[in-house]
Amino acid sequence: MSPFAVDKRDIQFCLFEYLNLLDFCKTTEKFSAFDRETIEMSIDTMIKVATDKIAPLNTVMDREGLRFEGGKVTTPKGYKEAYRAVCENGLSAPGKSAELGGGGLPHAAMTAIVEIMASASVAFTMTPGLSSAAGEVIEAYGTEELKKLYVEKLYTGQWAGTMCLTESSAGSAVGDLKTKAKRQGDHYLIEGEKIFISSGEHDLTENIIHLVLARIEGAPKGIKGVSLFVVPKFLPAGGKPGAKNNVVCGNIEHKMGIKGSPTCTMIFGGDGPCQGWLIGEENQGINYMFRMMNEARIGVGLQGLATSAASYQEALQYARDRVQGVDIKDMKDVNAPRVAIIQHPDVRRNLLSMKAFVEGARALLYSTAHFSELALHHPDETERQNYQNLVELLTPICKAYCSDQGFRMTELGVQIFGGYGYCQEYPQEQYCRDAKIASIYEGTNGIQALDLLGRKVSGKGGLMFMTFLMRMNGFINDNQGHPALGPYVAKLEAARDALTGVVMRFQQAGMEGDMYYPVLNATPFLDLFGTIVFAYLLEDMAVKADAALQKLYAQAGAKTDEAKAKLVAEHPEARYYDGKLHSMRHFVETNLPHAQATCQAILAADKSPLTINFG
Amino acid sequence: MSPFAVDKRDIQFCLFEYLNLLDFCKTTEKFSAFDRETIEMSIDTMIKVATDKIAPLNTVMDREGLRFEGGKVTTPKGYKEAYRAVCENGLSAPGKSAELGGGGLPHAAMTAIVEIMASASVAFTMTPGLSSAAGEVIEAYGTEELKKLYVEKLYTGQWAGTMCLTESSAGSAVGDLKTKAKRQGDHYLIEGEKIFISSGEHDLTENIIHLVLARIEGAPKGIKGVSLFVVPKFLPAGGKPGAKNNVVCGNIEHKMGIKGSPTCTMIFGGDGPCQGWLIGEENQGINYMFRMMNEARIGVGLQGLATSAASYQEALQYARDRVQGVDIKDMKDVNAPRVAIIQHPDVRRNLLSMKAFVEGARALLYSTAHFSELALHHPDETERQNYQNLVELLTPICKAYCSDQGFRMTELGVQIFGGYGYCQEYPQEQYCRDAKIASIYEGTNGIQALDLLGRKVSGKGGLMFMTFLMRMNGFINDNQGHPALGPYVAKLEAARDALTGVVMRFQQAGMEGDMYYPVLNATPFLDLFGTIVFAYLLEDMAVKADAALQKLYAQAGAKTDEAKAKLVAEHPEARYYDGKLHSMRHFVETNLPHAQATCQAILAADKSPLTINFG
Repeated sequence: MSPFAVDKRDIQFCLFEYLNLLDFCKTTEKFSAFDRETIEMSIDTMIKVATDKIAPLNTVMDREGLRFEGGKVTTPKGYKEAYRAVCENGLSAPGKSAELGGGGLPHAAMTAIVEIMASASVAFTMTPGLSSAAGEVIEAYGTEELKKLYVEKLYTGQWAGTMCLTESSAGSAVGDLKTKAKRQGDHYLIEGEKIFISSGEHDLTENIIHLVLARIEGAPKGIKGVSLFVVPKFLPAGGKPGAKNNVVCGNIEHKMGIKGSPTCTMIFGGDGPCQGWLIGEENQGINYMFRMMNEARIGVGLQGLATSAASYQEALQYARDRVQGVDIKDMKDVNAPRVAIIQHPDVRRNLLSMKAFVEGARALLYSTAHFSELALHHPDETERQNYQNLVELLTPICKAYCSDQGFRMTELGVQIFGGYGYCQEYPQEQYCRDAKIASIYEGTNGIQALDLLGRKVSGKGGLMFMTFLMRMNGFINDNQGHPALGPYVAKLEAARDALTGVVMRFQQAGMEGDMYYPVLNATPFLDLFGTIVFAYLLEDMAVKADAALQKLYAQAGAKTDEAKAKLVAEHPEARYYDGKLHSMRHFVETNLPHAQATCQAILAADKSPLTINFG
Repeated sequence: MSPFAVDKRDIQFCLFEYLNLLDFCKTTEKFSAFDRETIEMSIDTMIKVATDKIAPLNTVMDREGLRFEGGKVTTPKGYKEAYRAVCENGLSAPGKSAELGGGGLPHAAMTAIVEIMASASVAFTMTPGLSSAAGEVIEAYGTEELKKLYVEKLYTGQWAGTMCLTESSAGSAVGDLKTKAKRQGDHYLIEGEKIFISSGEHDLTENIIHLVLARIEGAPKGIKGVSLFVVPKFLPAGGKPGAKNNVVCGNIEHKMGIKGSPTCTMIFGGDGPCQGWLIGEENQGINYMFRMMNEARIGVGLQGLATSAASYQEALQYARDRVQGVDIKDMKDVNAPRVAIIQHPDVRRNLLSMKAFVEGARALLYSTAHFSELALHHPDETERQNYQNLVELLTPICKAYCSDQGFRMTELGVQIFGGYGYCQEYPQEQYCRDAKIASIYEGTNGIQALDLLGRKVSGKGGLMFMTFLMRMNGFINDNQGHPALGPYVAKLEAARDALTGVVMRFQQAGMEGDMYYPVLNATPFLDLFGTIVFAYLLEDMAVKADAALQKLYAQAGAKTDEAKAKLVAEHPEARYYDGKLHSMRHFVETNLPHAQATCQAILAADKSPLTINFG
């Protein structure tokens, strides 16, 4: 097993060269104190904590798992220490309000921090991630009193938070939930059972604050009668955990992966009164929860990126070290030197597929996080609206495309290790198991696809989709004559036309009252859309990388192919930029034809899945 | 968890309606004793043993795993009983020579038996599978004495067998192996260490017979100096295990899945003389081993089928039972009835994708098994050669396409179960973990792709590939005017043209001395070729299913769409045939465009993975 590795250079590129984060900080008062040094310091601290404390814990969490006994969850040795290190270094809520205990970082930089943490261990990130998201919901919608009681505790990680939506017969159908709330004075009594509650119970913090969706007595049926409550494990008393509230953990799940994350059945008011406090207004619960969920969905996409980034780094190192077989040109020479497997074309193809995905996902997730900040802080109101539209459109793609493809990448990681990939002695099989959850939780990827098509592409009269298209069109128009990248831009343009063709066909079906045809194709549509978004981002970055590379060539006076290759071999910066161009070319040539194929399959409009009689 | 289920109807279709196995039996002396009743009796016995003994054990094997202590492997409770039940019912070597203790079944029927066993537990099938394959190698190439000593014991499962190829620095590069053999009188002394030896040690049988690849002192370097040896754990004495040979198990692997299969490090002659007996001639080891390996590769493909068949059956049942959400047309009606998730289009699409794969894989694997028999028993020498060519061409597709896609199908199974899919309470996550190994062992799928391209498509001057093309062309010519299926045949024809275009381009590159371009694209090539083979087989079956369905419609006097739908709803046979047509349509419309896209990507000839400098 190689030491924990992070591609810090690509993170820097994304933040400082691609998103121009420093310009944004300079021109945005809230972030004017941040410069490259302060942001890099946070990143370096995260890398250090991840390397020293979290990464070594990842296998331990998987093998030892969590102990559940008498309603209590015990974490394995080292877990608390790692958690404390994260909190003490101010990394538990890196993007939340600094005045309330958060790190105050711009969203894109926060995303980098969380990526690094999740690369070291996806399971580990769950508790701080949920705590900071719960804090944000209370900060945004809670009363002053609730804010004072909880937000700082949650941002500093002193207390932990959860998000309680799912019930045994209300998973994807949240509106069917049965948990009840009954008004009693200034608070409510909560009664019901929630399942699949991540970090519902553990020994990492002295208190756990549950955000619980429940239906107030007499409220309407369905999602419009759902309210959101703060339900603490211990009622706060003088800033400390006071009396025990009646919320207990009934069990934890045994799972395929992320075994270090307690997935709990939580029983509220099962054995005495369980007190909860309303957040915001009655029956608005799902809207508040969506603030938490949208962030959580980008966070789940980030898990797809983080796991595959870790898998890629391990695979790259392994492929360099592991000697087996000979170069194919020497296949018949028994005396030919044995080579590292990184020389085998099939291994190189897998590695480059992983690299391209990781870079595309990083660009998408950091961009979306950055857009969510521009939606708040851009000086121009129209631009703020544009960025908000982009965030809404891209969120399901972040979540579903990055998680599905991220899982695929861990599969390639397993494959590069051969037989060892399947053995627990090496980390690849765990990455694969850990990655699978991301396609499921925070709304299965099937639900994300419905969200993309039903709420986002069709929403606001198509405005969100048009905002994205106009942005991509701008890129295409600016670069179709690019000397090196023009042919790739042309392929993107063709894919865009296929995409809009499919969207128009869906609209037509909608006008004809046929909802089943678009819904049947929602998942393939998300997949092809995600592919096009990745191609666009990789090309957009490639334009910048190419400019930087040309500059390096010019500086070195490298004019021939030979001189350029020599510079790439010797100069890490030239190699980095040249590698970005390779990622783009490989992704565009390999994946865009499949986006086109999916369009073609959708337009063929076969309805077999609807018409088959399964008996 | 649903009771263990097998799609016996589709197995019957494959054997009796698609492959016309009974006609073959009637006209082939060796099998003239078999009729539908005798073959079905074997299948029913296998279903019963699988249901009663093996399937209940599958989770136990996964959770308890195997115990390794003092060189001994202990299997969990119930394992020996299940193994005994298989042997006692004559199911341990169902396709091997009846006169030597095998079941004597035709290969296609044997494949059905093994599919059912592997559906109940992939891990379980490893020991009987390896034993019967080892027996066959000895039967085919061993001396009379070796045959007498071992074959019947192996076929009846009284003793178990293994296949010892891999060493720590000779996995994909078998020719690099270091295990030595030194002649001593009538036998050899074996010295070396093998890893990843399935069933290398266990407590299921009183003796274990290892087939070991080793290099005789003074033999040439590389694969041409490798010989094959029989190395028993106990030297046979009067038909019983006698003196202990010096072969020990050093360790077992902890794996992602198939935890009920001991994966052993085997040390030969580490601590005293280890005796082995040469099989056949010196330096011919790899050729003999290939007989075992080819069967094993089809067997691994079968694991891909079996796991996804089990995953599909569970998912289908779950989707029928699990109620959640409302029909999409009622999305805004809070009082709409809740429906089983099988009504949701996204779930139906996933189910039909699984069904289509399972049926395509079954057709491919049963066909290839059947062709291997026709290659031996067809009265016409040219036809025997044709069938042999088909078997050789299709073997890497059986192994790699079925295992890669089979893994994908278990992913869909997980997804259909939502959060429960990730929990060990339900079987889906285990199917997913168990399925992953099939892409790796018996030659990674990267190696299969090189085999397909380098040895099979290019081999014998292209004869194997041409044999397949001519067969598929025959189907296309016969059916392009088919009233219902013509348009699908046309799509297959277009895909065939794309396939041949790619092959011609590879040949051109070969003539120009560019080996890297085809080798770089070997894996995508296998994938697209596999897709086309599946489309062809599903269409070929659909022609037969359509004829049967039209007959049922006519018998029932069903002429309108309504009357036909009613018949399909009420009549299980009509529903079955109609379902076959749906499988074909869905696969062709969804997957053939991607085969075309892969061709396009290959022809674009991007060489980024070769030119990138990974540093």
